Amino acid sequence: MTHQALFDKLNPYENIKKMPISELETLCSEIRSFLIDSIAETGGHLASNLGAVELTVALHKVFSFPEDKLIFDVGHQSYVHKILTGRGQDFKRLRKLGGISGFPKVTESEFDTFHSGHSSNSISVALGLKRGLEQQGDDSHVIAMIGDGALTGGMAIEAMNDAGREKNNIIVVLNDNEMSISENVGSIARHLAKKRTSPIYLRTKDGVSAFFSKIPWIGKGLYKGISGLKAALRSMIFGDNIFEELGFYYAGPFDGHNLKNLCKVFERLKNLDKPIVIHVITKKGKGYLPAEERPDLFHGVKGFDVQTGIPTTSEKNFSAAFGEALLELGETNKKIVAITAAMPDGTGLTQFQKQYPDRYYDVAIAEAHGAGLSAGLAISGMVPVFAVYSSFLQRAYDQLVTDVCGMNLHCVFAVDRAGIVGEDGETHQGIFDISYLTSMPNMTVFSPATYNDLRFMLQEATQEYHSPCAIRYHKGCESREICELEKPYEKGKAQVLVEGRHVSILCEGTMVEEGLKATKLLAEWGVSAELVNLRYLKPLDWETIGNSLMKTKRGVVMENACQNGGIYSMLTGATTVPLLSVSVPDCYVPHGKVEELFKMYHMDGESVAKRIVEEFFR
Amino acid sequence: MTHQALFDKLNPYENIKKMPISELETLCSEIRSFLIDSIAETGGHLASNLGAVELTVALHKVFSFPEDKLIFDVGHQSYVHKILTGRGQDFKRLRKLGGISGFPKVTESEFDTFHSGHSSNSISVALGLKRGLEQQGDDSHVIAMIGDGALTGGMAIEAMNDAGREKNNIIVVLNDNEMSISENVGSIARHLAKKRTSPIYLRTKDGVSAFFSKIPWIGKGLYKGISGLKAALRSMIFGDNIFEELGFYYAGPFDGHNLKNLCKVFERLKNLDKPIVIHVITKKGKGYLPAEERPDLFHGVKGFDVQTGIPTTSEKNFSAAFGEALLELGETNKKIVAITAAMPDGTGLTQFQKQYPDRYYDVAIAEAHGAGLSAGLAISGMVPVFAVYSSFLQRAYDQLVTDVCGMNLHCVFAVDRAGIVGEDGETHQGIFDISYLTSMPNMTVFSPATYNDLRFMLQEATQEYHSPCAIRYHKGCESREICELEKPYEKGKAQVLVEGRHVSILCEGTMVEEGLKATKLLAEWGVSAELVNLRYLKPLDWETIGNSLMKTKRGVVMENACQNGGIYSMLTGATTVPLLSVSVPDCYVPHGKVEELFKMYHMDGESVAKRIVEEFFR
Repeated sequence: MTHQALFDKLNPYENIKKMPISELETLCSEIRSFLIDSIAETGGHLASNLGAVELTVALHKVFSFPEDKLIFDVGHQSYVHKILTGRGQDFKRLRKLGGISGFPKVTESEFDTFHSGHSSNSISVALGLKRGLEQQGDDSHVIAMIGDGALTGGMAIEAMNDAGREKNNIIVVLNDNEMSISENVGSIARHLAKKRTSPIYLRTKDGVSAFFSKIPWIGKGLYKGISGLKAALRSMIFGDNIFEELGFYYAGPFDGHNLKNLCKVFERLKNLDKPIVIHVITKKGKGYLPAEERPDLFHGVKGFDVQTGIPTTSEKNFSAAFGEALLELGETNKKIVAITAAMPDGTGLTQFQKQYPDRYYDVAIAEAHGAGLSAGLAISGMVPVFAVYSSFLQRAYDQLVTDVCGMNLHCVFAVDRAGIVGEDGETHQGIFDISYLTSMPNMTVFSPATYNDLRFMLQEATQEYHSPCAIRYHKGCESREICELEKPYEKGKAQVLVEGRHVSILCEGTMVEEGLKATKLLAEWGVSAELVNLRYLKPLDWETIGNSLMKTKRGVVMENACQNGGIYSMLTGATTVPLLSVSVPDCYVPHGKVEELFKMYHMDGESVAKRIVEEFFR
Repeated sequence: MTHQALFDKLNPYENIKKMPISELETLCSEIRSFLIDSIAETGGHLASNLGAVELTVALHKVFSFPEDKLIFDVGHQSYVHKILTGRGQDFKRLRKLGGISGFPKVTESEFDTFHSGHSSNSISVALGLKRGLEQQGDDSHVIAMIGDGALTGGMAIEAMNDAGREKNNIIVVLNDNEMSISENVGSIARHLAKKRTSPIYLRTKDGVSAFFSKIPWIGKGLYKGISGLKAALRSMIFGDNIFEELGFYYAGPFDGHNLKNLCKVFERLKNLDKPIVIHVITKKGKGYLPAEERPDLFHGVKGFDVQTGIPTTSEKNFSAAFGEALLELGETNKKIVAITAAMPDGTGLTQFQKQYPDRYYDVAIAEAHGAGLSAGLAISGMVPVFAVYSSFLQRAYDQLVTDVCGMNLHCVFAVDRAGIVGEDGETHQGIFDISYLTSMPNMTVFSPATYNDLRFMLQEATQEYHSPCAIRYHKGCESREICELEKPYEKGKAQVLVEGRHVSILCEGTMVEEGLKATKLLAEWGVSAELVNLRYLKPLDWETIGNSLMKTKRGVVMENACQNGGIYSMLTGATTVPLLSVSVPDCYVPHGKVEELFKMYHMDGESVAKRIVEEFFR
């Protein structure tokens, strides 16, 4: 199906300004249809983008981008924005190496202001940008578009606390779809739910202009010099709420799929003397039934059949293996409690949640609190297991180093999406965790290469330790070949998977698979490589490593992480044997397939084998 | 002055339970007098503890510690708690090596539940602890005592969002002294101020029991099954507020120096069916006029004259040098804006704030937001300089790695209190920053050894770079001897301060002074050491370092930071010359004088000189 007509209509960008509402409504349908077709093929974030079509079109109609600035929170809901700003054609290469990113990127377009990716930072950035522009006499509008899920991240509230005391009139568009990625939790969510079901909202759904016209002072300079009776009146109608407590104006909720009304709302509320929250209700997956019904399944998809909506089924992966293992351990060990920061599906906790609802805590998008909560649970004598993506655990760095490790508490971190993650790109790579976790005193760091190993390590971490443990594992699947080579589980030990005489290939996690490829190639070329699965990253099994290096006299360290602060740098200080480092270089890794990125950075087995020959045997 | 009578009165601990209110009031005066005498001599946190005397005594009177649990936020207000729990005699060794800590420590007493130190985590920990105890059928009370300043940290709100949806009845005692360390900022502060000046509070100051008696439903099971009319009534009287929006009960504000009423309040509110915020107003420095008038000066003091209240004057230090340098740069470069997270005094920004109020942002205790705000300012074209303690910058790890470095933004971080900080102990050591800053792509890391160098580096970072820069400097003063050896400033270069032939001593920051001591001792012993001031930690000046190592054939790397991910590990991977590492070991460094701790870890010049002889020349 071609969508050339849609792209033509949007070229040049300014066309959108001239379209009447009716034409824009047609445009929204076309965009929706394009999104479904395109993402069915390439994969990507579907549900959130289907929900944001009218909202994004309305913003582009009313505001003057790129002079005005739009900051996306999280950023996977920026597809419509990309389509509107001339990138529709590029969607066939969405999230592919060299193609467009699934997140805003300033390198792609002057319409992208910020590299979003992580949650809850948009209000901070918008406030900084607004203040900076004002310092330079520029009064362009700055808009932060944030979901209700991201609002529970403390940083968003920190920013509102700061913004609310000043005259900087940033505009926060609260895109409320009643969920973050899975179901939303906590008091703020409940607060929003209350707003959503208020008679006011039900009325405004029918027509915001009718709503406005009922309140006489709205038309003529809303919010200007509001005081006394009017404030009381406004409070009675809009309801007091958390945003007003934080010093913001609040307007809404508005129907996020009523384009005409959204345009009116933005037009009327864009020039205020204080920051404002414009609360918009949208439906994730809007316009595509399978996604409306199960938006969680259509959050990030690999591709699906448009007719049936059946997503490409994926094999069992490390997240699922973790989920199964924890479920099993939780049955006998009643002290185990599971924690997630709004990612029960992604981290494999769905089944645990169902089976042990009383020992399951979803803290919302709030990793710092998740770590603090773990600390408290550990003090009480429970065994908290916090399942979290590597790049998101970065948000709890201080709580880990200061609280958990500082008190040597028995908290277990199941660090998912470690290493290069592929299609999500720069912001989601889990390449810093070896560095930051091993630098923390008291922390034990595990790196399984198989599901079997993960299961044993989780058991060991939960039952045999009384100190902080982190198990890092990557996004993909185990390698059958490695499973076959695997030795019986031994606590604290690295494993020699293939014995050799000429060079030691020391690998962790995913890299064991690449190391095996290198070992095989080298064997063909007459080099006998010893393949060692490190398994424990802190403390390292110095004995096995040392014995291997003494025998072979040269080594390669393969780690799916940045070099600085990693295993290579620990080993070079401890041995005089020449070592090569295979690791992620000191840069931000773009989106692309994991295999492609391994090749690009010479981390794949073939590149490593060639390098070993060049550096050691030529 | 001896306070033995006070200690005797508190031994055994249970005595406090039996004392009538009048006796407890006398006790409060005695504690206050002890605090002033004791801290005048040893130094420590005075103002916050003087403010918390009645509050802490009331908690101990009403609750059953250690079965009930008290979690301090930040923790420097735990002195009264320490005195009450049998540690009065130990105050002569407060914050001294081997003596008691200035923060709660479980190793000191069964009455200490958590190692506080950083801000805003107490509600998370209390919630986790409460949930964990409940899992085990233990219904002990869990109390989080948090200041109004710490409440602006996003993690506190994340925790309230989580706590507010459940029945866990944690008790949050909001110790509101209208300031964090300096003046408090933001909407939450304003919100509290409004509560404070409400007629309700003014009335309750005169007597909380009178206040209670006016509301008929308070006496008989307050808050139990409250609904409908009662809820409306409560809302009208107490006022809707941010805590109730977050699902908490709210009671207060109460006079934090009226012991009798505080006891009544805690007694009546301790058994609820939901979490509650008990809002208590205290006065920092209460009972000691110099501290009441200038609580900021008496936050953390070195010692002072009790009669005059004149604190020991301190010499100019790196913070002051930074403040002066930024002030000077700010005069000509109008793009420079300064950011602090509630630490204008500690970071040396006070004068900048006065001179350029429009280019100064205090974001409250909210480091993550501070970094996000910096990112926004950088995008706008301004040059943000965020002055922040090394251990607190840990709270913005993700924002640095994902946002600032991920977008290669020109943000400057003035990383104060880097390295071992001394008396504040474990939680405040700035020993992880070399590791976490150098692992971030795009980041340039500077380490000045003199004020002069700091000034030039700040100029370079603000004017000559267009990428993230971090300048780490320690708490103390420069060394005059190093100033005399210093060469003219050269961008990107390390400096050979003393030429030598036998061993290269490669140092950063504070360690340059210790390196010089080693160099001199070695000279006496016939070893010619070359002293190199590294100055740039990322990228390293490989040329100067390489030339020195090629000449001497052996080296020592001295860094005031943890080894893992530091300079030693960068160098060992790049050279075959044997290197020794002098660094902070893989543990949490306790409180004590910096010099003592250097000695303890063999980081002082003499230890290093001896080690060099032993390892290289024996």
